This record gives sequence, structure tokens and C-alpha cells, in this order.
Amino acid sequence: MSDRKEFRDLASPEAAREAIDSLDLSPAPETVPLEDARGRVLAERVDAAIDVPGFDRASMDGYAVRARDTFGADEVDPAELDLVGAVHAGAAPDVTVEPGTCAEISTGAVMPDGADAVVMVERTDEVGGGPDDGDPDDERSEPDRIAVRTAVAPGDHVMSAGADIAAGARALGPGTRLTPREIGLLSALGVDEVPVRGRPRVGIVSTGDELVRPGDELDPSRGEIYDVNSTTIAAGVEEAGGEPVLYPHAGDDYDEMERLLRRAADECDLVCSSGSTSASAVDVIYRVIEERGDLLLHGVAVKPGKPMLIGRLDRREDEDASPGGSAYVGLPGYPVSALTIFRTFVAPAIREAAGQPEPATATVEGRMAVGERYGEGRMRLMPVGLLDLNDGDLPLVYPVDKGSGATTSLVEADGVVAVDPDTEYLDRGERVSVQLFSPDVRPPTLLGVGEDDPALNRLLDRLENPRYLPVGSREGLRRLRDGVPDVAVVAGPSDREVDAVDLGGWTREWGLVVPEGNPDGVTGLGDLVDGDLRFVNRPSDAGLRRSLDDALGDLAADRDASRGDLAGRIDGYELTVRAFESPVRKVIAGDADAGLGLRETADRLGCGFVSLGEQSVVVRAAPDRVERDAVAELADALEDLDAAAGGDIDGLADLIDDLAGYSRNSRNDP
Amino acid sequence: MSDRKEFRDLASPEAAREAIDSLDLSPAPETVPLEDARGRVLAERVDAAIDVPGFDRASMDGYAVRARDTFGADEVDPAELDLVGAVHAGAAPDVTVEPGTCAEISTGAVMPDGADAVVMVERTDEVGGGPDDGDPDDERSEPDRIAVRTAVAPGDHVMSAGADIAAGARALGPGTRLTPREIGLLSALGVDEVPVRGRPRVGIVSTGDELVRPGDELDPSRGEIYDVNSTTIAAGVEEAGGEPVLYPHAGDDYDEMERLLRRAADECDLVCSSGSTSASAVDVIYRVIEERGDLLLHGVAVKPGKPMLIGRLDRREDEDASPGGSAYVGLPGYPVSALTIFRTFVAPAIREAAGQPEPATATVEGRMAVGERYGEGRMRLMPVGLLDLNDGDLPLVYPVDKGSGATTSLVEADGVVAVDPDTEYLDRGERVSVQLFSPDVRPPTLLGVGEDDPALNRLLDRLENPRYLPVGSREGLRRLRDGVPDVAVVAGPSDREVDAVDLGGWTREWGLVVPEGNPDGVTGLGDLVDGDLRFVNRPSDAGLRRSLDDALGDLAADRDASRGDLAGRIDGYELTVRAFESPVRKVIAGDADAGLGLRETADRLGCGFVSLGEQSVVVRAAPDRVERDAVAELADALEDLDAAAGGDIDGLADLIDDLAGYSRNSRNDP
Repeated sequence: MSDRKEFRDLASPEAAREAIDSLDLSPAPETVPLEDARGRVLAERVDAAIDVPGFDRASMDGYAVRARDTFGADEVDPAELDLVGAVHAGAAPDVTVEPGTCAEISTGAVMPDGADAVVMVERTDEVGGGPDDGDPDDERSEPDRIAVRTAVAPGDHVMSAGADIAAGARALGPGTRLTPREIGLLSALGVDEVPVRGRPRVGIVSTGDELVRPGDELDPSRGEIYDVNSTTIAAGVEEAGGEPVLYPHAGDDYDEMERLLRRAADECDLVCSSGSTSASAVDVIYRVIEERGDLLLHGVAVKPGKPMLIGRLDRREDEDASPGGSAYVGLPGYPVSALTIFRTFVAPAIREAAGQPEPATATVEGRMAVGERYGEGRMRLMPVGLLDLNDGDLPLVYPVDKGSGATTSLVEADGVVAVDPDTEYLDRGERVSVQLFSPDVRPPTLLGVGEDDPALNRLLDRLENPRYLPVGSREGLRRLRDGVPDVAVVAGPSDREVDAVDLGGWTREWGLVVPEGNPDGVTGLGDLVDGDLRFVNRPSDAGLRRSLDDALGDLAADRDASRGDLAGRIDGYELTVRAFESPVRKVIAGDADAGLGLRETADRLGCGFVSLGEQSVVVRAAPDRVERDAVAELADALEDLDAAAGGDIDGLADLIDDLAGYSRNSRNDP
Repeated sequence: MSDRKEFRDLASPEAAREAIDSLDLSPAPETVPLEDARGRVLAERVDAAIDVPGFDRASMDGYAVRARDTFGADEVDPAELDLVGAVHAGAAPDVTVEPGTCAEISTGAVMPDGADAVVMVERTDEVGGGPDDGDPDDERSEPDRIAVRTAVAPGDHVMSAGADIAAGARALGPGTRLTPREIGLLSALGVDEVPVRGRPRVGIVSTGDELVRPGDELDPSRGEIYDVNSTTIAAGVEEAGGEPVLYPHAGDDYDEMERLLRRAADECDLVCSSGSTSASAVDVIYRVIEERGDLLLHGVAVKPGKPMLIGRLDRREDEDASPGGSAYVGLPGYPVSALTIFRTFVAPAIREAAGQPEPATATVEGRMAVGERYGEGRMRLMPVGLLDLNDGDLPLVYPVDKGSGATTSLVEADGVVAVDPDTEYLDRGERVSVQLFSPDVRPPTLLGVGEDDPALNRLLDRLENPRYLPVGSREGLRRLRDGVPDVAVVAGPSDREVDAVDLGGWTREWGLVVPEGNPDGVTGLGDLVDGDLRFVNRPSDAGLRRSLDDALGDLAADRDASRGDLAGRIDGYELTVRAFESPVRKVIAGDADAGLGLRETADRLGCGFVSLGEQSVVVRAAPDRVERDAVAELADALEDLDAAAGGDIDGLADLIDDLAGYSRNSRNDP
């Protein structure tokens, strides 16, 4: 297939880490304005260049005195001092406190010459001066003497110059991460520019003719897909303290790829390529690295990540370019694999180069919710979801295995568990460490599974951070029985007996969605069986499909035929599409004459609709989860829904009232 | 003093929270480009607008087949199919797979018409075509038949259109915080602009004639200090998910302040004023709020925070301004108080308005390292430091009470403990919750106390995240004995008996620092006693002072006088300044003729030096902390130092070798 060497022995994950550590990603330190310094890391120690405060400072409102003049003073026998002036914050004192005198002073003001202590205003009385008639708008004449009713010691209520921090003292050490408080101390020292560790520049080059940038036009018929990895990795780089640089797509063309990789190497500390899963694109990168750099490692004994490349890319040799080379890491093409490998191997190197510590929230401990068998002789980075039952025990951890090609695994999993090559089985209840995809990942409060439904989508919007996996009613019930999710949402009839508590639900009208105006004059299922209409179905896990099959069974009984026979006569009965809206879209696109769907969707998307009945949608909770806050919150929302359908609660009525074919469910009417 | 109302009853902290909650800080949602969306919060649900993938997609490299054609095929009896073409990723298929045929297909490519499964290339053989002579550079002619050595079912190694996520399906709910993975899913959906919650704009107005922006020239003789609160609060606003807007300083002028506050109210969702502790500045703000807004609350029964103001500021009434008003919170003037009140009352409101959850790391549990008495009838937000001994128990928590005016408390404390008004005593060992000043605060790994010293500063730079409190040798030993710090650094002679383990140290030359060239011809202490030189001393906690007093004692013995008598004859003996560099700076400034200091400092700052001796600096560890990693690391660094002074280790020699008057310490020579 290509001229690349075949690496027979995959490197160990440790060897991959060492290879990355051997590369130098560290950028030069830089100086940033203080207002941009939050989150950055000090490159060097900062010593105080000035005393703080820069002067002997009054720390109370009151009178600046010579402490000796107050010795022996108390409530009974106050010391009377001549008032010789006043000093306010932000002004130079224009008085000297001679023996027997005092000066009014504000908090923060400079102690006048002669004074060595402050008496709080509360411990003094004004003596003499004009009358205080109690009218606050009147200007009173100044008193000329002050009675001090307490003794003070030298230094009382005075912060001496440098007492907070003195010039020459160590203020902040190198490696200090700058949070608001450090910015506060730097401000106090008058520092407005801060020497910080540089943020490694990470160039992101995506390969593959099939990739299109989000926002651009997509042509699925050419196999085009949106580029997921560039933006995901860019966000990951930013999060790790690096500065991402996105390069234009290179396609699979060798010259273009070489040009791009070399430009990225010139401009960046690290280049990550990612994007394509196609062998030809990988081949092109492989050749560029071999010819224009060093390949340190190809292939790591970790799943996913086998195709990982680690190396160095040469820089230009003219005088403008920085010397040496740029580090290079080639990430797998599938998004979950790319993010997993990035998080496990690359992000730590970026953080290290940026001087940033690994966030405390990057890893959480959990316990396996199910047993998981494994054994491939290489480390597995297993994508898992988390659910914290808040029962005092560790959060539940369950594997998410939708295949590495699924981008939805990005949000259905919360991180990965590194399973050792020697581990063949993880027991239910076993303690595991989950490396979160991001330190900012918040595991969901509620895990639901089951049917997809537009009213359910709105209901979920009202909950805080739920996770819902639209696996269909049948699969949802199976999972509920197996004990991981909190609730399953079940539409239509069910043959699974599962011990569960019904929390409520609604009813939805289902049938055949046809083009606007029903051009084929479809009236019911018989037309699908007897005519030559192209139909599009839902998979057998969907509740809609169960209702369709039941209706087909009824028709078969009427006709004295078998259901299978009738199904075999429907063109497209085996053609199933994923979600409740999918058949309708096929109809709209002209790829089908009728599709299984909801009145709601037909109405909303401007199609015709032939009703075949109503089915209930019921939210069923695992009995041991009913007391959980998040489940109770869901139950409350469903009760509001019942009330809303009754018209009592205004704000909630919109949940189903404007959904065509929807009505309140009676709990006794499945 | 002013015309403001006196609020006799302070509001409860709960009332303050309610008052802030009653204000509306929520900005309008906005749309941001995907690349700027990390960390933002979705304002509304995002449904998939397209199927992902948008086509039936090969998930393996291999051959696209009709599954039926492979039924029964195995290693022994492969099925042979005509190869009719090839489909690559990013290209539209130009073949149709008829019965008995197949097409080469790459991972990610569109399934050609007719095909319903992919056979992995590993389970096939090429049959016919030109010879493969093993030279990889040769173009081989295409084979014309493919032997398939396995049976596949329809759908095998094919990801059907919409199987990942289908158009119309709920992708991400409102309130979702966007981390790299969510950005990945949005990219897969082609979303390049994201509807997010707005970031509340928070105007920061600082008051007080004495405040100067960091970077500007400071005149301490006028009582000027750098503005700490504006930058600190701005960083805190940013951290909480808001957008800070810094307004120019207003001073204490009513008209200017009114103009600024109204401009801030027009432009922001919330205005915070902060900065001055002076009563006149507070009065000005108070009047503006009363006249141009609503005052909801003045004064909260919390220490610090009594002067807190909560209210609303009117906006302009012309048509360009947003309707209504801006929220207003007046923060205390002292930096630690301002950050504490901000963190406790304001940051949660900003996060709420931004839709951001409180970070998991915002609060940590700890145990009191010492008992603490309290009882003022109002809640106390007590600044505390943390030290995690990593002994399996909760981190130690110790009060940091340097007075609220100290900006160094910002970095010497890690957060605050809210002590209930009814709590009169916190026991040693009692469990407390520490609200960190920032979720990014990392408590130190090592806590040291004691003498300040330039070599020590360098040593600290080599450790990861140490905290060192330069409280002087004496106070350091006292604290070590009381059990909180790991180590104390002691210079000179000591009269405290403390059970401690010496980890090593060095020796430094001390004496009198005089102006360059020693213009007064100082030769020793006698000149201070007998002449009229102005001296500047260090406080009695400093090890340097102990050595000076011992030398003065020796001189007194020589002269048959008392030490106190000689001390009384030194002009400035009682004038003590904070840090090892401070006396030297007084000499340079011309405020003193001689200062107590180190040869190192005199040399470095270009002064003359009269040596009075050498003193040892010893790092002493609490016996129960010696095994801690951070202490062991420090001990190692000190051993390296010993080696370095001996000239053996090159890289470490710079720690003391270029410090004038420094030498290796013998551990037996205190």
C-alpha cells in the first residue's frame, strides 16, 4: 500500500510518554500586562521593589499623637491636646505634631512628623470650638482641643512603612499560578507587567479530502464530513494552557501537506496532525516526517492510539526562523480516540511546558457499575460515563462503547479508564480512576435512556445537567433492568417485564408521514402492503416500531395473513432510520413516499399525516433511584406537566400544549 | 461627620444574599463563534440539523459488498467477487455494486449503491491482476477479482446515515458548559456559531484620592498607594464568568463620582465600587446611590463587610440606554476584605447570571491546626492558610491575622472560614470548610517561617509551591513549637529551646551598612554609641538584631557599662525596619548614616560595609514533619548546597557562591 516501514512492535505507553517528554515544547517566557495575567504562571520570582505601605500609615480614623502624651490618660482623666491640623488620605501632611498637640487623621493617611500613634476617634472628645447645634448641614467651626480618653503605645493604629511587605522581600516565587489574589499583591507592588511562562503554540493540521470546516457547505454525497478534531483539539490546547493555531485543510496532497507541516513547524512549538482516518493521508504525513524531521515512535500499544506518531519537524534554516525543530504528534482520526490520546499524552506535555499544574478535577474516582471483560494485550483507554448517585459511595462508572467513529461518544462518555494490558476483567463495584475529558467536565445529575420524543426533549431542558441516551424503548428497558440508568422512557406497548416506578408521561399520535397534500392518497397501512409506495421504518428498539408492528398484526389478522408476510410486501419495511424525525426527512427529500412518524413532526416539518393511533410515553424509574433528588425533580416536572395539560399552570403548559397530537397521559392507560 | 443615615441594625448575611439575588444581573444571550465558545454556557438547546454521518459510511478499509454474496464464505471456501472500482473518502462513488461484484473502499468513504456491508481488507485476497514483485515503488496493475474469506451481515462495518446522531435529535441541552468535547460535537453538526449565555458586564469604580494605578508613579509622601482592589476584583469577575470593565479613578469628588457611577450603570449589569477606606469617599458613593438609585441594604453583620452597600443605580432615560437600572454593590476598602466579600456575596451572583456552576474546587474541607477564640455577635469570615500534610487526614487550617489592611494576607491566606456568630471557640482539630479565594488556589506544599535571607529566597525558588512567612527567627521558632509550620529558619544565636531537626544551612556576614565610601569612617559599634550617627535597626524578632545585641553586650562588658545604656546612646536603636534590605535602603535614601545589615545587601546595592561578624542560618524542621516529601525535598536541596559550597556540584553552586559574605555552614557551628 505504501512505502512506510511497518513497525512490528508497538511502543509501550511509557515509551510514548518518554518520547514526548524528550521533545522540547517550552516557549520563551514573555511579559504580559497585569490585566491579562490571570491564569498565567510566573516565569521568575518577583521581589518587592517598594515598601508597602510606602509610608507610616494611619489604620484608623482619629487623631495622630505622640504616644507619650497619652500615657496615664483614661475615661476619668483624659489627656487634652491642642489640635493643630488635619491629614487626609492622598495628601501630604502639612503639620508637625509637637509635644502636647495632635492632628486629625483619616484611615490611610500619612502620619505627620512627630506623631507615633493614632487614637481612635471613638476614644476622644472635641473640646472648645463652635457650638454643635446638631444640624448636619451646618459647617461647624473646628474645635481647638481634643480630649483623649485612653493611653496608646507608640505604633498603635499605625502600619509602619514596609510592614506589609518591604522592598527587597520575596513576594511571589517562580511557578506561581496567578489567581486574583496574586494579581492583588502584584498591584500593591505597583507591578503592571508580569514575566510569565510562555504558552506553547500548538499548530493543528488536519488532513483528509473528506473534511469540511464547521460552517461551510457539506456535500454528504461526496462523503464529506465536518472536521471535528481541529476544533476539539484546539479547545483542548487552550484548556491545557497552550495557544492553538489552526491551519487550513491540507487534503491528501503530498506537496500541500509538506508545505503546511513545515509552515506549522516554523511557527509553532508543537504540531499536531489529526483528522483523517484514511490510510493515504496518514501515509503522506508519515513521508513528510521521515523526510523533513525525525520519527521517534510510530504506533503505541494502547487502544485507541495504535496509529499515533511522535517525532520532530525541522524548521527553515534562514536567519528569521527559530533554531531547531518543532515537536510533532500525530493523533488518531476518530474524534474520541483523538481527544483520548491528546488528553493522555499531549495535554500533560503542554501543561508542563506552560508551567501549569494538572487541575485537581482532571481525574475522579469511581466504581464500576457493570463488569467489563477485556484482554487484548495492550492498554485500553476505555470511554466511560459517570453517574454520581450521591449516596456517599463513589460515582458509578459504565463503559460507553459506540465505536470510536461516533462523535456522540464525546458527550455520552465523561472520560476514560486506563485498563492495564494484564487486566482481563473489571468487576462490578471495582474501584477505577476516570481521567475526565476535561477538568471542566461535570458528570450528569440524572441518567435516562429510551425512546426519543420531542416533548421529552423539552422536559430534559428543564432539568439541570441530565444525560439522555435515545437508545429506543426496548433497549432502554433492558438497560434499566441491568441497573445503570435512573429512568427509562418507554413509548407504546412493551413485552419486557421490568421492576420500575412510573413517574408519569403523555400520549402522542403516530402514523404515516407523507408528502404535503398526501399526493398518493395514503389512507392506512394497507396502502403500504398493497401499493408500490416506498416506505421508511424505525428500528425494532423504537416504541413507534412496536406500535406499527402491532397494527400490522391487526391487519394481518383481518386479512387472515401472517404479519411477516405483510411486512415482506412493504417496500422499505427493513429500511430503518435512527431518530423520530429521520423518516420524515426522507419523505421530504423525496427518498420515500411514506415514513413512520409522529403527527407532531409531520405538522412541524410541513408534511401530510395519516393517523394510525396514539401511544403512551411513560417515564419509568428504577425503584432504588426514586428518592434521588434528580429523579424527584423529574417526577415534579412530570406532575407539573399533568397539571399543565389540565390547564392549571400557565408557565408549563407550553411543554406539550403546542405539540400537535400530544395529550396528557393517564398513568393507568399504558 | 456626614448626612448619611446611620443604620443601627446590620443586615444578616442571608438578607445580603437575598438583596443581591433580587437584583437582575443577567445579560442578554449572545452568539459567539465556535472557536471562542470554550467555557461558555449554552443559552438554548442545540438539536442536530443534519444526520451524522450524512451518508452510509464505511468504517473499515476493505471492500464494499452485497452481504448476501458472502453468505457461506469462509477461509476454506472464499467467495470470489468481481472488483468493479474503488471509492475513497471525500469522493462520490462512481460505481454500483451489482450482485457478484465488489468495490474497494476506504474508511470514511460513501457506500456505493448496491453495497450493504464492508469486508475488512484483512479477510480478503486479491485474485488475478498483474504480478506483485514486491517492489513497493512499482505501480501494480489492479487485480480484477477479490476472494472474500468471511461472511458478513448487512450493515457490517458500515455506519449508517444518522447512526451517530440524526437530524432533529437533541444534541446538547441549555445550560451545558462547553468543554472541548461539546465543541467537538457541535463541530460534527457543522455548527460554527453558538448561542450562549451572556457574560455579565461588571463595572469597577475605585474611589479615594490616595489610589494610583499599578505602573503609574507613586508619591508615598502624599500617602499614595497602589490600587489593589480594581485589578483583584476584575480578575475575580473574569474568573466567575463576567466581563470586567475598569473605570478611571474618581477620587473623592462628588460630581466626578456621580458621572462615573452613572456611566458605569449605563454600560454594565453590575457596578462594584471599591478601593478607598476613607469615610469621605464612602459618603460620596452613598449620596449618589441615594439620589440616583435605590439603596437596598447598608451594612452587613459580617466581619469584614460591615460597610457593604447593596443597591440599584438608574440608567439614562434616553432611547439608546437599556431600560431599568444596574445592580450596585459597594465593597470594603481593604483588599482581603474586598476579595472576601466579593467571593462570598458577589461572585456567586455573577456565576448565576452567567449560568456557570460553582467550581468543585471552590471549597475544601480542613481541620483547625490551632484553637481559635471568637465571639463578636456577627459572622466572621476568618482568613486562613492551608497546609496539606498528605497524611490521609484533612489539610491543616490556621488563621492568618495580619490585620485587614495587609495585602500580603492575600497570598499568606488561601481562603476564609465562615464562623457562625454563635460560635465562640473553634477547637484544635475541628473540621471546617474553607472557601478558597479562587477555585485555582493551590495550597502550599511546605510551610516555612523565620528569618528573611537572600540565599533562602533562592532556595525557595527551587521548591514547588512553598509558602514562607518572614516573621523573624524568634517568632519562627515560637510558631514551630506551636506545631503549625514544617520548618523554621533561624539566624544567629537563639534562646528558645525547640525540639527540631536541623536540615542544614549556611553562614552569612553581618555588620553595619554605610553609604558608599564610608564617609563617616565608621569602624564598629563604638562609633554608633559615641558619635552622632543616625542608625537604623531591625526588630527584636530578627536574628540580625540578636547578633547586634550580643555584640553590644560584648562592647558593654569591655566598657564595664550596661548594654541598655549603650543602646540608649545609639540614635535610632529603637528605629526598626521590616526586612533585611530595609535598613540599607534607608541609608541609600540618606535617612540614616548606618544600618544593620548583610555584606550581601551592601555589596549588591552599592553601599559600604563594616563587618561585625558571621552568623549561621539554620533550617530546622519539626520532628514529625521530617518524613514529608516537601521537607525531604528541602533537605535534599540543602545537602546539594553543602556539596555546592564544597565545589562539587556545579549547577547548584550559584545559590550562595555569588552572594558576598556567604559560606557553607558547618552543622556543628551555630
